[in-house]
Amino acid sequence: SLTTATSSKALKIGLLPADGIGREVIPAAQRVLESLSGPKFEFVTLDAGFEHFQKTGTALPQETIDTLKNECNGALFGAVSSPSHKVAGYSSPIVALRKHLDLYANVRPVVSVKSASTPHQKQLDMLIIRENTECLYIKSERQEVDPKTGMKVAWADRRISEYASKRIGTMAFNMALTRDKLRQQKPESERFWKHKPRVTIVHKSNVLSVTDGLFRETVRAVKEQNAEKYANVDMEEQLVDSMVYRMFREPEAFDVAVAPNLYGDIISDGAAALVGSLGVVPSANVGDNFVMGEPVHGSAPDIAGKNIANPVAAIRSAALLLEHLGYTTEALQVYGAVDKVLSEATYLTPDLGGKSTTSEVTEAILKNL
Amino acid sequence: SLTTATSSKALKIGLLPADGIGREVIPAAQRVLESLSGPKFEFVTLDAGFEHFQKTGTALPQETIDTLKNECNGALFGAVSSPSHKVAGYSSPIVALRKHLDLYANVRPVVSVKSASTPHQKQLDMLIIRENTECLYIKSERQEVDPKTGMKVAWADRRISEYASKRIGTMAFNMALTRDKLRQQKPESERFWKHKPRVTIVHKSNVLSVTDGLFRETVRAVKEQNAEKYANVDMEEQLVDSMVYRMFREPEAFDVAVAPNLYGDIISDGAAALVGSLGVVPSANVGDNFVMGEPVHGSAPDIAGKNIANPVAAIRSAALLLEHLGYTTEALQVYGAVDKVLSEATYLTPDLGGKSTTSEVTEAILKNL
Ligand SMILES: CC(C)[C@H](C(=O)O)[C@@H](O)C(=O)O
Ligand SMILES: CC(C)[C@H](C(=O)O)[C@@H](O)C(=O)O
Repeated sequence: SLTTATSSKALKIGLLPADGIGREVIPAAQRVLESLSGPKFEFVTLDAGFEHFQKTGTALPQETIDTLKNECNGALFGAVSSPSHKVAGYSSPIVALRKHLDLYANVRPVVSVKSASTPHQKQLDMLIIRENTECLYIKSERQEVDPKTGMKVAWADRRISEYASKRIGTMAFNMALTRDKLRQQKPESERFWKHKPRVTIVHKSNVLSVTDGLFRETVRAVKEQNAEKYANVDMEEQLVDSMVYRMFREPEAFDVAVAPNLYGDIISDGAAALVGSLGVVPSANVGDNFVMGEPVHGSAPDIAGKNIANPVAAIRSAALLLEHLGYTTEALQVYGAVDKVLSEATYLTPDLGGKSTTSEVTEAILKNL
Repeated sequence: SLTTATSSKALKIGLLPADGIGREVIPAAQRVLESLSGPKFEFVTLDAGFEHFQKTGTALPQETIDTLKNECNGALFGAVSSPSHKVAGYSSPIVALRKHLDLYANVRPVVSVKSASTPHQKQLDMLIIRENTECLYIKSERQEVDPKTGMKVAWADRRISEYASKRIGTMAFNMALTRDKLRQQKPESERFWKHKPRVTIVHKSNVLSVTDGLFRETVRAVKEQNAEKYANVDMEEQLVDSMVYRMFREPEAFDVAVAPNLYGDIISDGAAALVGSLGVVPSANVGDNFVMGEPVHGSAPDIAGKNIANPVAAIRSAALLLEHLGYTTEALQVYGAVDKVLSEATYLTPDLGGKSTTSEVTEAILKNL
């Protein structure tokens, strides 16, 4: 890794606000990072996004990639607009960044906060580990004419490798242990999860016996081949359709879930619905040498520029960035401040039923740091 | 079609209980069909399933396929057990049946019933139209050794054709009109959906611009090319991840949703979670010449043989079968009886928080016919 928690040099963080509300929430996250007393940061703002594509013809300039690769320790990505129609030459910069920087794990903690405004909300505290480099996201597609019908037929390749499944499986089991360790430090009454750490493998091997079969077997093998290290971690499986069903019926049954790319995308949005808003769910794109925080929400063009976007997802993504760069203490400090503001429910943006602005919520979090 | 609603000959229905609770809920559905005063039925019970595979080495005997194709007007399928490990030579009979009989649409209505036992339940009344023949379900997979890593790599082909997308899109728009017509016959106060009929296209074309792009464009073209016929039907789109999110946040926003095979599989389980139990959600596999009813739930080995499985999904699937064979009056009669029993909440199986048996719930429905 380019950096360690003991490094005294400033951490260089690339900021990619990209589109829509990305431009409001990334500055909020930056303010939170700047106000921490521990690590020193140096920021560099970089171009990317659909609007940049519309202006310049490129959604992800080579300069952005080079600066991230050669100069930065980590990055924060805002959100990207997705045109619903096909646009010649346009391709999602976030998917490309994950690939260019080999950010193979998309780490998505989804935690409910008890608050006055959400009395009937189900409680959950799960971590979704989404494979981030392959599956249908390799974007290997083509279209031809079907000789039988004379009509168009399109094909996409779905790739599942033992290599990628093994490293994502390893990440899942390691994170299950890390979560367990952090939980042990809390008083019993504050621990939501009272069981042994658990990894749930999400797949659809009843239909995709070869690809999802390989994913499933490889992740299982991670535990089997490290029997001692992971002895205390339970392992179970869910077909992706049942997973969505069960997440909604008994979200309290899940600790860490590990899934191929597309299933991970879908179940993390599903889990977000359970905690009140996409506006509170962070993610980190994690590689061996780089981490990029990214709120799970989109660019939300309908509310962009109005100072009402929820900054919590971006701020938590900054905390995840810290966590995966080795700054656990600072990360916990940010999580704590966010949790306090959410549970007090005095300053909430409209997505959570409140009336506060992006700036007011950010201020409230800064005060609690 | 082999049959019409005015045919005086008996309707021949293939019964495929298959595995687990399929053997309890299919007989329940049969009893309901037998007790209707309109159409006359002849039933033939046919082999299929994982247990049959374990006994005989085949999950779907050729005789079953032949009898369905040559003698039956429709069928009811129970549920199939999915071994989580790979079993040499085994392949899901339900996926194979859909293909053999060209049952290209999987029609899944998900309707909430207000009842004393589910006070906080969100209200929804949506119809999911799932493409049923292609996408990753073509099961074209292979495994090789990755020369770069020396490790295994597996590939699956995802197929999306204009042909299949067009017919599923057409089904979606037609069903939106049919639903609207049936709604108009109800008193205003009993209509849950108060808007113009609406079709929501579910896809992920921001990543899969070629395959999902083709799906999206083809379904859109169905409306554009039949502008007059579908003038009154609104059309919108949702990325599959947002769809899962929005379904849970505002399920009342959806009327008809149309999706490629795998997304349809996932969102229908998601919708089922919103109405209280998978045990109440039916489906029909619909082709131009054949209909096969199929509860959305699985074989539930944990509760099989205990007479506590919820027969509602299978009974509603029988009603869907009737509906798609042209017996709308009889279908509405069955739906009405089921709704009555659910809303009275006197006889409910344990999945809905009740204490009744499969037989008791079935009796209650029979009494209300
Ligand atoms: C914007 C889109 C390409 C992206 C994805 O599908 O990965 C988003 O939904 C996410 O979850 O980060
Ligand atoms: C059993 C399985 C192959 C099937 C599917 O994925 O289609 C089931 O989940 C369903 O929804 O009918």
